[in-house]
Amino acid sequence: MSSSSDFAIEIQKVQDSKISDVDFDNITFGNTFTDYMLVCDFKNGEWQKPIIKPYEPFLIDPSAKVFHYGQAIFEGMKAYKDEHDEVWLFRPDENFHRFNKSAVRMAMPEVPEVVFMEGLKTIIDLERNWVKSGLGNTLYIRPFMIAIGSGVIAQPSTQYRFMIILSPAKSYYSGAVKVVIADHYSRAANGGIGAAKAAGNYSAQFYPTKLANDKGFQQIIWTDDATHTKLEEAGTMNVFFRINDTLYTAPTSERILDGVTRKSIIALAKREGIDVQERSVLVDEIVAAAQNSTLKEIFGAGTAAVVSPIAAFSYQEIEYVLPVIEDSFASQLKDKLTKIQYKLAEDTFGWTVKI
Amino acid sequence: MSSSSDFAIEIQKVQDSKISDVDFDNITFGNTFTDYMLVCDFKNGEWQKPIIKPYEPFLIDPSAKVFHYGQAIFEGMKAYKDEHDEVWLFRPDENFHRFNKSAVRMAMPEVPEVVFMEGLKTIIDLERNWVKSGLGNTLYIRPFMIAIGSGVIAQPSTQYRFMIILSPAKSYYSGAVKVVIADHYSRAANGGIGAAKAAGNYSAQFYPTKLANDKGFQQIIWTDDATHTKLEEAGTMNVFFRINDTLYTAPTSERILDGVTRKSIIALAKREGIDVQERSVLVDEIVAAAQNSTLKEIFGAGTAAVVSPIAAFSYQEIEYVLPVIEDSFASQLKDKLTKIQYKLAEDTFGWTVKI
Ligand SMILES: Cc1ncc(COP(=O)(O)O)c(C=O)c1O
Ligand SMILES: Cc1ncc(COP(=O)(O)O)c(C=O)c1O
Repeated sequence: MSSSSDFAIEIQKVQDSKISDVDFDNITFGNTFTDYMLVCDFKNGEWQKPIIKPYEPFLIDPSAKVFHYGQAIFEGMKAYKDEHDEVWLFRPDENFHRFNKSAVRMAMPEVPEVVFMEGLKTIIDLERNWVKSGLGNTLYIRPFMIAIGSGVIAQPSTQYRFMIILSPAKSYYSGAVKVVIADHYSRAANGGIGAAKAAGNYSAQFYPTKLANDKGFQQIIWTDDATHTKLEEAGTMNVFFRINDTLYTAPTSERILDGVTRKSIIALAKREGIDVQERSVLVDEIVAAAQNSTLKEIFGAGTAAVVSPIAAFSYQEIEYVLPVIEDSFASQLKDKLTKIQYKLAEDTFGWTVKI
Repeated sequence: MSSSSDFAIEIQKVQDSKISDVDFDNITFGNTFTDYMLVCDFKNGEWQKPIIKPYEPFLIDPSAKVFHYGQAIFEGMKAYKDEHDEVWLFRPDENFHRFNKSAVRMAMPEVPEVVFMEGLKTIIDLERNWVKSGLGNTLYIRPFMIAIGSGVIAQPSTQYRFMIILSPAKSYYSGAVKVVIADHYSRAANGGIGAAKAAGNYSAQFYPTKLANDKGFQQIIWTDDATHTKLEEAGTMNVFFRINDTLYTAPTSERILDGVTRKSIIALAKREGIDVQERSVLVDEIVAAAQNSTLKEIFGAGTAAVVSPIAAFSYQEIEYVLPVIEDSFASQLKDKLTKIQYKLAEDTFGWTVKI
């Protein structure tokens, strides 16, 4: 990919880096940001020149469409440092394409590939000191786009802002994760925006998740909203179920985010000779499998959480505890995946991209 | 309602009003704002003092939750000027209660009644010159709340901003409105956020609405997402169907906004002796009624659009044109409603509140 000169990135340098103030060993997810942000505006029907400048608040009109009508999409990716201090991205093309798919669904302009990809590479190159080596240490990357045009009429904006911000991170969840299977609330509608990484999909989950938290569960596994019989995905993870030695995961649909981790896990499992099936997974069959002990594992898969084993699930107020398994599929697949991401194993798929 | 002293409103005066720059006869909906805005922040678990200050952009962090997770809700109301230059609100208590219902569903803090109601009254009193007399002239009122806390982790914010902004307006739609009945895309899920006035519900509709616009239709009438057989509501209006002399409208549910105009139209129709039924309205029965000419009217009802007659609808690529009716229910009910709003008829319901 060659950077078009229209989109040559201007860099405004910071005076002093904040990096020495950061305690990298005690970092909470998503709260610390690096020195720079990338900003690229869309107006008059065109994308403007991208600028990398000091991370800081910006001015926005109270009537900006993002506040009133929720035109906002994002991506979540990570940069990894290998043992030779090289920095790598994992399948960034997947995030780029999904970002623009989200943009179309939310009636927002697609971001040019050169702005997204060269933007990513340039800002991460500039911030490579913020990517710490060691398994689990990453730089979380948040590309996003918001409607900044003003006006309180429910119509798409004519002005947008694309940004990339960066946050050093350890992995997302820690400890045993317990989940509730949804039997009333839902995440996405048929013909809705569930497959888009749209801001509105996330706040919609906060209240039901709070109800689950109050009962001691961290996450919800969403079901289809029409019947609540099919298991779909969690708030920020796709979900895999292991019955005996077969892995099952819901097929992607217009209700489900097409996760990069999900498709990577499927590819890795296939390579390892694990039987993986993408097909509807019914609540009833998982409850039955839990009851007859053929349900061996449930795990979530997502960029932030990587691979996150589920210790127990609750369905209609009954809690089902999963067995503790030696050498689980979750731990095997997480190990294979992270070794590729950190360049500790050969990347036979060509997934990693050097900064 | 008495204003608690904690929430006494501070007013920061503007130097010069912008009002003389405004051409009130040629105003487009939602693009012109008055001199002031009300701002009230929530932090450290408490609502802070409300401030009325000059309308202007404000600073916000790029990682603000509203941008990433869409925690944002709003209301839409209008102020009306009567023939004696008095300014009136219409059922503001309904908007206040709906706002806090939306807040709960989006895991946001409820706004104290005194902040919402005294805030409204104080800012509108200050801006009463912006409310023009004459039927159709209004001051559109936009209370809204956004999550301003920072951090890219999908969890509710701890900081919020409640604001009221004001925009002089004529009515929303003009000319004949043609609609498409949705048979693939949807607005809301069962167990979703359709009943909340949440920002994300609106951007979700932009893309399907654009597809409808491209075919010459202005709006979509949404159907239930599970079966697409039940007619629900339009993007910013509830919908009424008249078959022979009976009016039908969908019952409110967790998928449908409980519109103030809808409930006022129902009350007015009942008072006028019109048979109104709140029950599921099926696509099939409306198509059949259009075919056998018993379908007399369809109209939308909402604050912005008031009562908006539908001239034609399209379902699965077939267009059905509605008859042009003298003295339609739409025009009768619109007349009754606006006369109450502008104090040209007695308000037997006690709906109007003086500023
Ligand atoms: C709703 C949802 N599902 C699944 C995922 C996992 O997707 P990915 O593996 O691409 O991070 C995410 C998160 O990123 C998500 O937000
Ligand atoms: C989705 C939706 N339905 C219906 C309405 C009508 O509600 P109200 O009459 O309270 O304005 C609105 C608008 O305000 C709306 O946004």
